[in-house]
Amino acid sequence: MSASTFPQGFYSYVTNAGIKNTAQDFVCVYTPHPCTSAAVFTQSLFAGCSVDISRQHAKKQAFQCVLTISKNANVATGEQGYQDAQTIITSLCEQLALAPHQILLASTGIIGQPYPMDKIRAVLPQVKAGLQSANAEQIARGIMTTDTTAKHHRVRVGNATVVGVAKGVGMIEPNMATLLAFFFTDAAIDASTLDQLFRRVMDKTFNCLSIDTDTSTSDTAGILANGLAGEVDLEAFENALFDCALHLVKAIAQDGEGATKLMEVRVQSARDVKQAKTVAKSIANSPLVKAAVHGEDPNWGRILMAIGKCSEETDIKPERVQVFIGDIEVFPQALTPDLISAVRHHLAQTEVVMRVILGTGIEQACVWGCDLSPEYVVFNSAYST
Amino acid sequence: MSASTFPQGFYSYVTNAGIKNTAQDFVCVYTPHPCTSAAVFTQSLFAGCSVDISRQHAKKQAFQCVLTISKNANVATGEQGYQDAQTIITSLCEQLALAPHQILLASTGIIGQPYPMDKIRAVLPQVKAGLQSANAEQIARGIMTTDTTAKHHRVRVGNATVVGVAKGVGMIEPNMATLLAFFFTDAAIDASTLDQLFRRVMDKTFNCLSIDTDTSTSDTAGILANGLAGEVDLEAFENALFDCALHLVKAIAQDGEGATKLMEVRVQSARDVKQAKTVAKSIANSPLVKAAVHGEDPNWGRILMAIGKCSEETDIKPERVQVFIGDIEVFPQALTPDLISAVRHHLAQTEVVMRVILGTGIEQACVWGCDLSPEYVVFNSAYST
Repeated sequence: MSASTFPQGFYSYVTNAGIKNTAQDFVCVYTPHPCTSAAVFTQSLFAGCSVDISRQHAKKQAFQCVLTISKNANVATGEQGYQDAQTIITSLCEQLALAPHQILLASTGIIGQPYPMDKIRAVLPQVKAGLQSANAEQIARGIMTTDTTAKHHRVRVGNATVVGVAKGVGMIEPNMATLLAFFFTDAAIDASTLDQLFRRVMDKTFNCLSIDTDTSTSDTAGILANGLAGEVDLEAFENALFDCALHLVKAIAQDGEGATKLMEVRVQSARDVKQAKTVAKSIANSPLVKAAVHGEDPNWGRILMAIGKCSEETDIKPERVQVFIGDIEVFPQALTPDLISAVRHHLAQTEVVMRVILGTGIEQACVWGCDLSPEYVVFNSAYST
Repeated sequence: MSASTFPQGFYSYVTNAGIKNTAQDFVCVYTPHPCTSAAVFTQSLFAGCSVDISRQHAKKQAFQCVLTISKNANVATGEQGYQDAQTIITSLCEQLALAPHQILLASTGIIGQPYPMDKIRAVLPQVKAGLQSANAEQIARGIMTTDTTAKHHRVRVGNATVVGVAKGVGMIEPNMATLLAFFFTDAAIDASTLDQLFRRVMDKTFNCLSIDTDTSTSDTAGILANGLAGEVDLEAFENALFDCALHLVKAIAQDGEGATKLMEVRVQSARDVKQAKTVAKSIANSPLVKAAVHGEDPNWGRILMAIGKCSEETDIKPERVQVFIGDIEVFPQALTPDLISAVRHHLAQTEVVMRVILGTGIEQACVWGCDLSPEYVVFNSAYST
């Protein structure tokens, strides 16, 4: 089976509605089999119409269709935005014999411009006739905006398969979810269990990802389980889902706008997970740390600075802190020229690992990010024009 | 009187100790007249030796001497760092007949490298003999690290004068103070009053400045009042000090590493000052907003995004929010091509003003920052090498 092979019973229709110039921008994934589902959404106060609507739908945990329109976020579009979303949902319900709450609508792209409904109306009626066996590569490609790689991953657990697809390269510091990430499985899992394990996995993966501290208005992550492969060992399933999500998280960090390196920041011996995550995010988000990683500059003082600015974590004492870049202790140990060379060698890799021992307890957390390059700024200085 | 003219009774010795290649890096400002003083310091958990020591000294509110060594922060230098600082203080005390608590020691520069004490020991004994009438331009130039402009300002209040000098271009999101800012006045103000009004002014100026969200380990701001000009109207003095501090804050934001524009973000009709500042900082710190300002791109959706990510401010309702760029309402009003042109015209200026009406109350706050340019990243990717 190829990496694009889907769990049983899922179909997709992926086309160009003309929002992107020629690339695919209209992506429908559908299963005719009743599903349990779970989903998490952005905590943004300016959540988009799609998020508002899908958040309501998600409560019934019965999604059977995910429709993603990319290159337009349908955010800050007022009452018109809601009407446009309802038009789309109504058409899907009619074609696929679904109730509105079975549809997860997601949008991503520019903020503040209405959907080009003439274009969307032209392709919408073709969904049912266009459905084919679902293809992860096509789906992942269709939901991309400024991504440069299609992000999907497939894991097996017992007789079941989990496929995840995701997109996102900027405006990424998810707060409950990433830009867009969807998981499809043929495992049979009851709704309540699915919800709990999905949230646990998202919390340790997508919620530990930061590219630029900016939280999107459109973040949405969901999982659909149609049960065709029967029951699975739940612990094995959670581990498999974690692996799948982590793979996508790393792919997103690596493809961060302008990024050349994946940064993994692991904070250990912390008072609690929250403290570990606060410190790890402070490091992963520091523009000065990120710029130094970009330049492969062993300026470890900036890691101390980023720990130090977590000024509410008053139980952190400098004399108990240890900092490592790769395997090399850079603080408090004094660095010899040989050690500095070794740090430089590690920084020259495409995956840079920083590890901090806080000395305040026994918990840990890991956060993924990327370096900050001049290209990030160049790219984002003229996005709307 | 020139802009460099100092209040009465202040002297300075500014020289090159060889830490910078040839530029001045050793700056002593001294007054032989008893002073009241006030000072605020970084909240960083990794505060440097100079901050630790000066924070203790500051409690007696009697600084008569400010010694700044630039290009080396004396941070994360262990026990040696404290010994080196004490060596410097002891020498100054002997030469100037001061007690240790009368000396404010400040350092700024790279983290994690010991002071080059051989170089410092060579110039230290020359302080007393080298003192001349204080010169603000010289002092401001001597405390610079990567600054491209010397930052000082002078205001008059009654018979008294206030001179402020400051430095800082990166690692700037002060938490109680900026990198380095010193104010000198010949007004007579009692210690308790001076402390209160100084903290109020710092809170509305330097604590509302953000260049890159990174908080330095060396932030220090202080004021010395030697009383030679007698008493002044306190309200007039506070206003004058505010003007002086604001001038320096804007100069710092304008000189932000790689910056081409000053950004002023004013949040009004907020529940309280804290909420206004939270939202203003979220906008001023968003790399996507900053990059759009750099590119003069009227991508106002990113301002909404930055408001939206303040997800704990749940009383903010999108339908009550208004956003302005310059004088032009960009949300919720629909933008005509003429209005977009007007927004572009404003963004092309060197001072960009964004204004948000939150609709949750009657308080406001203003935050100053700068755009994000590729040069910031280029510069900071190889600072230590």
